[in-house]
Parts: sequence; C-alpha cells; structure tokens
Amino acid sequence: MSTDSFEASQKRSDAIREEIAKNPGKFTMLTGDRPTGRLHLGHYFGTIKERVALQNLGITTRVVIADYQVITDRDTTGAIRDNVYNMVIDYMACGLDPEKTTIFTHSAVPALNQLMLPFLSLVSEAELMRNPTVKSEQEASGRALSGLLLTYPVHQACDILFCKGNIVPVGKDQLPHIEQARLIARRFNERYDRVFLEPEGLLNDVCEIPGLDGRKMSKSYGNAISLCLTEAETAKLIKKSQTDSERFITYDKENRPGVSALLTTAAICTGRSEVDIAEEIGNAGSGALKAYVTESVNGYLAPIRERRRELEGDMDFVREVIHEGNKQANAIANETLAQVSDAMGMTY
Amino acid sequence: MSTDSFEASQKRSDAIREEIAKNPGKFTMLTGDRPTGRLHLGHYFGTIKERVALQNLGITTRVVIADYQVITDRDTTGAIRDNVYNMVIDYMACGLDPEKTTIFTHSAVPALNQLMLPFLSLVSEAELMRNPTVKSEQEASGRALSGLLLTYPVHQACDILFCKGNIVPVGKDQLPHIEQARLIARRFNERYDRVFLEPEGLLNDVCEIPGLDGRKMSKSYGNAISLCLTEAETAKLIKKSQTDSERFITYDKENRPGVSALLTTAAICTGRSEVDIAEEIGNAGSGALKAYVTESVNGYLAPIRERRRELEGDMDFVREVIHEGNKQANAIANETLAQVSDAMGMTY
Repeated sequence: MSTDSFEASQKRSDAIREEIAKNPGKFTMLTGDRPTGRLHLGHYFGTIKERVALQNLGITTRVVIADYQVITDRDTTGAIRDNVYNMVIDYMACGLDPEKTTIFTHSAVPALNQLMLPFLSLVSEAELMRNPTVKSEQEASGRALSGLLLTYPVHQACDILFCKGNIVPVGKDQLPHIEQARLIARRFNERYDRVFLEPEGLLNDVCEIPGLDGRKMSKSYGNAISLCLTEAETAKLIKKSQTDSERFITYDKENRPGVSALLTTAAICTGRSEVDIAEEIGNAGSGALKAYVTESVNGYLAPIRERRRELEGDMDFVREVIHEGNKQANAIANETLAQVSDAMGMTY
Repeated sequence: MSTDSFEASQKRSDAIREEIAKNPGKFTMLTGDRPTGRLHLGHYFGTIKERVALQNLGITTRVVIADYQVITDRDTTGAIRDNVYNMVIDYMACGLDPEKTTIFTHSAVPALNQLMLPFLSLVSEAELMRNPTVKSEQEASGRALSGLLLTYPVHQACDILFCKGNIVPVGKDQLPHIEQARLIARRFNERYDRVFLEPEGLLNDVCEIPGLDGRKMSKSYGNAISLCLTEAETAKLIKKSQTDSERFITYDKENRPGVSALLTTAAICTGRSEVDIAEEIGNAGSGALKAYVTESVNGYLAPIRERRRELEGDMDFVREVIHEGNKQANAIANETLAQVSDAMGMTY
C-alpha cells in the first residue's frame, strides 16, 4: 500500500466518520476475530471498544467469529469450542448486544462460504500472491503458505459482501484486504449484475495499548492482560512484569520500555497522561507504579468482569446467542447467494 | 505423473475393476462434466457410456454438473441454464437413471462447497502450483491463472469426498487430481478424525473417438457430432468434413486424418474394424464413405435421440430431476459437513 493510497483511504475514512455521525442507518459494519485465545486489553482498546460505540450509534453490526481462519497458519483447531464460547462472553461483557448485533461463526454459514467459488474466479493467482499482509503473515508463521492463507482475503471478501457490509474497521495493514473485497465486488457487478456494494475501510484512530514488556500485546509473548483474568491474576501478572533498576519513575518509551508500558496501561485505563502519572509516582519506584497500574486496570475492567462472571454462569444463554446469530447470518447469506445465483444464471 | 506411478495407478485400477464385478455395492462413484455446451460422441464413448454401465452394475453413482467450474477459465457463465438442462437431458437419454443416480449442480449444494475451507488449509500453495493439469489448462486458456483454476483440484476433492466417493473414472491427465483428493482425505483423517475414504482413479480403457478432422473431438474445433443434432444436421456436418483427393478409401491415420477419422467413427458405431469398412467402400470414394458414416452414426444414436426428444417435451420432469438430485446431494453434504465440523470441534 503506497503512502498516496493510504492518504486517500484515510481521507475517505474521515469522511465516513462524519457521515456516520449524521446518518448511521446507512451503514452496515462487518468485523470479527479469530478465536485462537482470550481477548485482552489490546483487543479491547484496539477494536472492541470502538465496535461497541459504533453499534450504539445505530449502525447495523455483524461480527464474525472466524473459526475457519484459525487453521490458516496452524495444524489444528485447538480448544476451538472453548475459545468461541469465551469470545462470545467477552463480546457481550464488553457491550456488544445480541439484540442489536449479529454474532456468528464462519463454519455455521454454508451460503457465505460458497461465495468463495464465484469470488475465486474473479481474482488471479498473481493478485493473490501480491497481497503484502498475506506474505508477512506467512513469514511470521514460519510455515509453508497454505492454500487457505493464500486465499483468506477472498474469504474475508465473502464475510464483508455476504451481508452487504459497507464499512470495515481496519488497521493500516488490513487495507489490502479491503482493496481485494472492493475489486471482487466491482468485478462481480460488472460481469453479472449489480449485487454488491464496494466496502470502505474505517481506519482506527484508537490508541494502541502495549504489552507489559512494551512490545505489541499478544498472548504468545506472555505480555497480555486478558479480560477474563481475576483481579488477583491481574495483580500477579503486573507484579512480575519487567521494569528496570532506576527507582525514579519517568516516561521514556525508548529507554524504559517496561516502565513506559505500565504508564501507558494506567493512562489508557484512567484517562490521565503518562507524564502526569509518572510525576505522581516519582521516587516511590516500580512497586508503587505497579500497584497503581493494577488498581487502574482492575478498576476499569470491574464492570466488564462482573458481567463476564454472570454470563459464565448462564452458558445456555451464551449458546443461544450463537445459535440465534448463526440463524440470522444464514438468512442473510441465503438471500445474497440467491441473488448471486440469479445474476450468474444459475437457477434451474 | 511419472511412468512408475502411472503403472501403479493402472494396476490398482485393474484390481478395482475385478472387485467391482464381484461386489459393486462396495463402491461409490463420483463423476461429472462442466456444462459449457452440448455433449457429443467424444463424451459419449469417452465416459458417459461407461458411466451408465457402472450405474447398471449396481454402483452408487453421483454425477455433478460442475457449473462453478465453467468460470475457472472464462469470464462469464454463458447460456448456463440451457446447458445444464440439456446436460441432464443428454445424461438421461444416454441411460443415466435418476432413480439410481444422483444428478446435481455444484451451485445448489452449499455444504459441499464449504468443504473448500478446511480442505484449502490442508494443501500448500506450492502443491497447488505443482499440479501439471492445472498448468496445461491455464496455458490452453491463454489467460492469467485465476484463483478458481488454481484451486479447482481442491474443489474436485470436495466433490469426491463429500459423498464418500471411492472411485472416480479418469483419464491419465486427471490422475494428479485424484492424488490431490487422496492427500486431502489422508491429512484430514490424520489431523482430526477418520471421516474420509481415499478415492481411487478408475482409468478409462475406452476407445477415443476422434473429431471429424482427426483432432480431438471438441465443440470449439467444429469437429464434434453432438448427441442433440438431428439426423439431417448430422448428415450435413459429416458431408462437409474434410477428406482428400484420393478416391480409393484406405485407413491411414497419419497421412489421411480426415478419411481415417470417418472410418473410426463408423467403426465405433458399428463394432466393425476400420480396415474392414475401408475395404468395403474401396473405390466408391469419400461420398460413399460419408453416407455410410452418416448411416452408422444416426443408426447408433437413434434410440438416444428419440429419448432426447421425449425429454425435451417434458421440461417439468427435467427440472424435477435436478431438484430431486440437488435435494439428495444436500442431504449427503449436510451429513458429511456435520461429521467434519464435529471432527474439527466446530460444534457450538
């Protein structure tokens, strides 16, 4: 993605935000996550919080739990059922409301998945290979490029287009996927009939919360504060995070990554600035800082965790939410597939 | 495909033929065609005739009309509905019996198509690129390799495996696709649970009928005798076929391709040898030869064409056959997909 087209995307994204404020009913948002583990503060502040805000503005919201995409870069599905249940619990605890939002799993919506066939005919192998995000994900996985990883941007286009999604919250690295979906929509409409909208990426302007070691927050780095942790587990995790030997607390991302990550975590949870918090702690050292961070995080997460515990105690309801979401997604997908088959002349 | 593995495939194929004769109930056959035009004598003697014989031996028979594969190497679906209806008519006119055989279209069986997702995760991009048949088909098309052409052997694996097919009638050039399907079945069973059978290719030992110009019979060469032609159309097509200036008729494939193709056509339709027919015609020249070929072809096709006309007059029945076949295929596909989801832990 060149700087030029990034700037163009940013401009379009800003215009859409203005339009959303005025007329949310015009928008359908598709977003989702791979159920590979528990959601953590990185997910929450990076995407879930904004997703909830957009839902509450009145945008039609569809959230896919991308269970098939778990195996784009690994051999097995792992504890997939447990991960899916917990993802739904996390979503609802954070404020996604199944009365307003369709939450569904890929594997339960055959008509969505069937769109892979016509859509794969609309892109060339060279275009698939050119996707920079696929390349970097394959390199990160350290494995051979699987057919599913190669084609997953097409599967993502199915997600977006099956529900006539016109906005997709994305980070900069996902803009190539939006381009892929736009291209597929455009080519389908040109070749057959006007069935699809061309979706736009809604660029995140949210703060990025670092992991406890200053790197990107990720479960695999052991630096992630999962939403499902207890207060005591959170305290323990923060306590054992790496700081440095300098007692006096200052905010210095480059030279003091551990201390600065803790300051940012507290800043985001409290709405204060890192420098302000650092000055307050001052000579009290990293022990005092960690106590403050723990208190800030646990305080922020308290209502989410309370709701989480309630939901954990009502698994029948959790399953019902998935079943109802899948039912809704199937109804939408069946209707879109019927339009696609009609446009292609495949009705017999 | 090396000579060694071809010989191994031939040996396995021969063993299966023996087993079929003894115990046909053990076998489920998957086969099919792309609905890109009308079936002709090349299809009939190359595959349809044997397919009917296997059906009548008592093998469970599933025939897919591969409508999505029409767009692996072209931009549009063309007269797809008409082609599908006529394919079903041709099938039944040739002896495929919807009471015994499931005839269905790809596009109407979402759970079959959904198998693309887990299956694509089981093959690498390198394995997809290595398929020699995909390569030669792409070269023949003169177009960029589409995502659908690249992945169509995986889609073919979905066709074979969704119905637990264990034999697939193939030509030598399709053995790589069978290998792909075997590999996918094996990997799925190893990673998740024993759901699939490893299919075997049943190598054709049928005669290949040439086109009227001696090249491979193909609608695009204008050398094909379609089953749906009238007797007069057949006569006209044979009459304008290219022979040579030598009056005396001899069988000489290399130096007299037109004359020899006509002789082979008559030979296959009458069960006589080319040399025998050539000697009989002798000095009567190509006019007499063409008259004999026309008579042989029209004679052979007479009952097929009569049945064809009856079916053309009962399109409600033709549509009913497709709908019933699709219903059966959906029931099978839904059951297999449920087993797949269960094996992968994707039941919520």
